[in-house]
Amino acid sequence: MRLSDLGERALIEEIRKVIDRKHEFIGDDCACLPIGEDYILITTDMVRRKTHIPKVMKARDIGWFVAAVNLSDIAAMGGNPLGLLFSLGLPEDMDSSTVKEIMQGAKKCAERYGIHIIGGDTKEHNELTISGTAVGIVSKDEILLRTGMRESDILAVTDCLGKAGAGYLALRHGIENVSLDGLIHPVPRIEEGRKLSKYATSCMDISDGLASSLYQLMTMNNLGFELNAEKIPISEVAVSVAERLDIDAYTIATDYGGDYELLVTIPPEKFEDAKKEFSKTPLIPIGRVVKENRITIISNGEKKELKNIGYEHFRDVG
Amino acid sequence: MRLSDLGERALIEEIRKVIDRKHEFIGDDCACLPIGEDYILITTDMVRRKTHIPKVMKARDIGWFVAAVNLSDIAAMGGNPLGLLFSLGLPEDMDSSTVKEIMQGAKKCAERYGIHIIGGDTKEHNELTISGTAVGIVSKDEILLRTGMRESDILAVTDCLGKAGAGYLALRHGIENVSLDGLIHPVPRIEEGRKLSKYATSCMDISDGLASSLYQLMTMNNLGFELNAEKIPISEVAVSVAERLDIDAYTIATDYGGDYELLVTIPPEKFEDAKKEFSKTPLIPIGRVVKENRITIISNGEKKELKNIGYEHFRDVG
Repeated sequence: MRLSDLGERALIEEIRKVIDRKHEFIGDDCACLPIGEDYILITTDMVRRKTHIPKVMKARDIGWFVAAVNLSDIAAMGGNPLGLLFSLGLPEDMDSSTVKEIMQGAKKCAERYGIHIIGGDTKEHNELTISGTAVGIVSKDEILLRTGMRESDILAVTDCLGKAGAGYLALRHGIENVSLDGLIHPVPRIEEGRKLSKYATSCMDISDGLASSLYQLMTMNNLGFELNAEKIPISEVAVSVAERLDIDAYTIATDYGGDYELLVTIPPEKFEDAKKEFSKTPLIPIGRVVKENRITIISNGEKKELKNIGYEHFRDVG
Repeated sequence: MRLSDLGERALIEEIRKVIDRKHEFIGDDCACLPIGEDYILITTDMVRRKTHIPKVMKARDIGWFVAAVNLSDIAAMGGNPLGLLFSLGLPEDMDSSTVKEIMQGAKKCAERYGIHIIGGDTKEHNELTISGTAVGIVSKDEILLRTGMRESDILAVTDCLGKAGAGYLALRHGIENVSLDGLIHPVPRIEEGRKLSKYATSCMDISDGLASSLYQLMTMNNLGFELNAEKIPISEVAVSVAERLDIDAYTIATDYGGDYELLVTIPPEKFEDAKKEFSKTPLIPIGRVVKENRITIISNGEKKELKNIGYEHFRDVG
């Protein structure tokens, strides 16, 4: 079957069958290698000019972006980052100053988290293609996994959603005077992941969009969610873009990827303690875990099913 | 400056200045992260359909190849491999069976070394592009580095050279009945690297070709080499292709990359002990380390400079 018919998630399932990994963490944000009392976390993520890098991104933004999306996977598992590697596929007519700027952007992101770029590879490619690898470490008893949530756990996010989606829609519809910062400058929630590792029963980053992420958690945990649309923290930029496009602002938060906030479940009795640890950035409850295998959202007093129309590679947005 | 004018090695120097890594191991085959008594080794290598994958390679060969070239970097540092990750950039019109075959090939290589494919990423790409990441571990006192060689050390390789170069030339010149196994099926020298970690003063893999590798070692160590052309173990396939093309067989071994044998320096007093550990595969002395900062090769009693015409990305083969 052609990949365009199969879709990314079905493909990943096929690959999983081939590699035959009977491993407790398969399907998580990072691969985990047990070393003594710790897990070494490793994750790799490829971006390419045409589909992942909006033209408004400068070379430095690209470097930051690749570093950030990889570090976000370390954050989602409660890890401390250790280093970054970059595999660069570069057009031969690219200027070396552009490559240096890409790496300066990556370095800036690495430094923000107290780590270094420790290695990589350069190759010729007809299209700028960068595969980042992030390495981290987390003690075995503090690791955050996608599985483990329980009925009645509180569902929460680490900050406003819809920042990236609003930027994407602004570019697509030519809406001016909209901040693109959320789209091109994601901030991995490393400190937040570390704090959550004491409280959370499950965690992942929202890179694929809230709805898509919730459906992935539902499948892995065999539990559903009930969300309250009014509680979803919508970024100002999403509210503004939603007004211009005459759509419900919360759908920008649920249907578009790229926000890189953490999506987390916390037992109700621990939630207040967890929240106290969040001062600079918030920890915002948006719903709860339910026994039924479905995801509903209450909006304007009306309860309806949340549709899964987040972005999936090899397939168009639904 | 355009990358095609700058060349790969000058580009890497520029990148190094940007990332400002004052780290003892920068420039080695893997990045090293100290964890307790060990180093975690991490390396990443990107291949793409057009420039790295000869058309004769089947999907399974491609998977093996990407796994092998990454594991070879672990071997070159004396490491034990722990796992492999694959970032797959896949054309949307590719059949999912092709992706499965790629992963089956990768799995076969991983299993050969007792490890698993532990993670990865899939993305759409207009050209098949795979970035592999290998992770390994080595105790701090057993790590093999590119630096450390001393004058009079014996220079040795782990097996015959020219296998990949002969395959490349056979394809380029349409020479039939030549085994392409050395080109498409490299065998990382993991066990050999582990053995050498007790004896070697420096080590790297010969992925870029013997001459190119020696020039890299010369620059890093500020010492030169004297080689004996008659001692360089030339594979049968290289001898056969050299005859057909009427060229010196040893130039196939020196000027073409892709062999993935280990190139190693060993103090003369330790060489016999090291050699005794090699039974299934050989350890073949081909020259020695000299004080002068140049590389000479003695062929037919004549001493001449060994030219550095190994493959460099972004530049044509000289």
